[in-house]
Amino acid sequence: MSWWRDLPADEPFGLANLPYGVADLSDGPRVVVRVADHALAIGGLAERAGMESGAVWQCGSLNPFLDQGPHAWASARTWLQETLASAEYDDCVGANLHPLDGVTLLLPITVADYVDFYASEHHATNVGRMFRPDQAPLTPNWKHLPIGYHGRSGTIVVTGTDIVRPCGQRKPPEADAPVFGPSVRLDIEAELGFVVGGATTLGEPVPLEQAWDHIFGVTILNDWSARDLQAWEYVPLGPFLGKSFATSIGAWITPTAALAEAKVALPGQDPALLPYLTGAAAYGLDIHYEVEWNGSVVSRPEYRDMYYSPAQMLTHMTVNGATLRSGDIFGSGTISGPEKETRGCFLELSWSGQEPITLDAGSTRTFLEDGDTVILRATAPGANGAVIGLGECVGRVLPAR
Amino acid sequence: MSWWRDLPADEPFGLANLPYGVADLSDGPRVVVRVADHALAIGGLAERAGMESGAVWQCGSLNPFLDQGPHAWASARTWLQETLASAEYDDCVGANLHPLDGVTLLLPITVADYVDFYASEHHATNVGRMFRPDQAPLTPNWKHLPIGYHGRSGTIVVTGTDIVRPCGQRKPPEADAPVFGPSVRLDIEAELGFVVGGATTLGEPVPLEQAWDHIFGVTILNDWSARDLQAWEYVPLGPFLGKSFATSIGAWITPTAALAEAKVALPGQDPALLPYLTGAAAYGLDIHYEVEWNGSVVSRPEYRDMYYSPAQMLTHMTVNGATLRSGDIFGSGTISGPEKETRGCFLELSWSGQEPITLDAGSTRTFLEDGDTVILRATAPGANGAVIGLGECVGRVLPAR
Repeated sequence: MSWWRDLPADEPFGLANLPYGVADLSDGPRVVVRVADHALAIGGLAERAGMESGAVWQCGSLNPFLDQGPHAWASARTWLQETLASAEYDDCVGANLHPLDGVTLLLPITVADYVDFYASEHHATNVGRMFRPDQAPLTPNWKHLPIGYHGRSGTIVVTGTDIVRPCGQRKPPEADAPVFGPSVRLDIEAELGFVVGGATTLGEPVPLEQAWDHIFGVTILNDWSARDLQAWEYVPLGPFLGKSFATSIGAWITPTAALAEAKVALPGQDPALLPYLTGAAAYGLDIHYEVEWNGSVVSRPEYRDMYYSPAQMLTHMTVNGATLRSGDIFGSGTISGPEKETRGCFLELSWSGQEPITLDAGSTRTFLEDGDTVILRATAPGANGAVIGLGECVGRVLPAR
Repeated sequence: MSWWRDLPADEPFGLANLPYGVADLSDGPRVVVRVADHALAIGGLAERAGMESGAVWQCGSLNPFLDQGPHAWASARTWLQETLASAEYDDCVGANLHPLDGVTLLLPITVADYVDFYASEHHATNVGRMFRPDQAPLTPNWKHLPIGYHGRSGTIVVTGTDIVRPCGQRKPPEADAPVFGPSVRLDIEAELGFVVGGATTLGEPVPLEQAWDHIFGVTILNDWSARDLQAWEYVPLGPFLGKSFATSIGAWITPTAALAEAKVALPGQDPALLPYLTGAAAYGLDIHYEVEWNGSVVSRPEYRDMYYSPAQMLTHMTVNGATLRSGDIFGSGTISGPEKETRGCFLELSWSGQEPITLDAGSTRTFLEDGDTVILRATAPGANGAVIGLGECVGRVLPAR
């Protein structure tokens, strides 16, 4: 009954991880924490353990917990780790564990605002070369601020949700006018999503040294992108329908506290940034990604290659006085490294469709075909060689309607 | 006690209007409808009139009512108009009327997604001339689709909220690198905001002929804009911090049903649009705006000059399968006409600061100074020469923090 205290050292969802999610249990959607291949209902555990449970666990969204802020997040994590480590609570724990293969995982947060950044120099350079071949690949602002834009919160979906191929306008290079129809350049973007907690006051920026206090945790994010729609629409106001049809996130939010061993220095920022973006909080994260396309791993992006720190993105996002709300998500932008095999989207991997990718089964691809499945997976280093799993983010492409 | 049945023909908030809002009443935030200079608490009226009140009125947001869809909206409006017109309910009505000067009006909806369009040809042309003087003023896509982008939902505020001057990066033309500080080109954008009701299913676009079924009503919207931040940041992913610090909307949502007399043909669309954007629903609205700056009316934009129909914007926004949610708002973009005195932002009125505007008191302005107040007002034609008031949207600029 106490297998959770004897997990192997390489278990990616051991007691050093404890990512949060929401599961559809028999008494309704409930906040859970993942322990190996089980979901632990926190509210039920708290009740049986004699804690004041609180409405934050007995609901279908992490948002009330996110609202409580970093001290409450730390307390809850300590309590969970101590409770799981102590034989005293074995019955309480056992009674609230649900094997993952028997539960449905739901979108874990009610998304407030969704912002997507563009924080990989390699990705921005590659896209610049393809989209604007007559100009310098990086725009003049790129190395002075983390470029970002708002995306559609209402179409953020949980891993496993099918993705209907979007229709829209595109203009073939040789055509005089746009045509309408299903996207023919449907793509992914392998990203890291940051889940924000703790509301701020309008007009009051979050300084860099406080930024991590608002980053509750991380999840894998796939920013599905219709490159043909995007290319036609995005000048001058940015991506819109080329992105807004769906954004997938993982079912599990790994707490920032579980990523202590993943802190790394940024690759280097030159020229120096303005003072509001500099400081000790401007570090990166060492997270390893794997992009699987119909069963073949086609890329292994490394998050440590990203130019901007998550803290810099959050601080920049509020420097004009914009508020944060619990449930805000921001994405890193596509994670691409300097080598071809670390590029995080098919636009780059196929160099705009000119270099087809061969999958293990012998088939080739440039962009997504109907029926294709993409799985993003990620892990971070834990203490003493252990692994912190971020889980996976899966989507299958359905034909346009 | 029945003054609401004897309102003058030119009363802008008579029984043909009945805009909805949310007021902070003694028993909490409640859905109200405006009758002349009073707010009528709908829940209290319904209860006293023996109707099943329903939670939709006894709450602090219009969203539950928006969820009910167009048949419920029509029924509620008919019931309100009949109840107000009949002497039978005079006591019930009288008991639930609150003079506006004694109540605080709140943000009337919980904003889901916020999209801002760019639907004025004159505005887009003027901005193109100023921001991209070396290129054609309109981008090649402009006359084929209503360009839009997502804005920040969390910083939509109700009229009367003070606006703190945002800080951020800007790059003076002669400088090699950006500088940080308060915006020196703070501007407004006079827009019409459309409030969406009725959720749709992911992957299922809303055809043009159904678009109006999802447009519950309209409100005045001021898309505050820091032009210097925007100019530096917006290439290639669009406006971000230059807009996200605040967007003001009116306290009253005028139902689309009250705008029957305001329907007008669009000015003309050439070249022809793709079929999904064409049809009888693609009409415009005749709404007259007034932009007042520190007491001086500096512009009178006309909504009938807009190139794209609200229905076209809504249908385009969903053509890729993106869902709508109740509480979504989309803005029209700045309302500017062909004449200088109908331009809807100070960037255009001052031609990027080169042509100062003289206010009545003799002072001059290019962009907003601390302490300045801007009031947007709007009216639409009603039946038989009557007027439908959209109220006002007010904001005062506070110094940067």
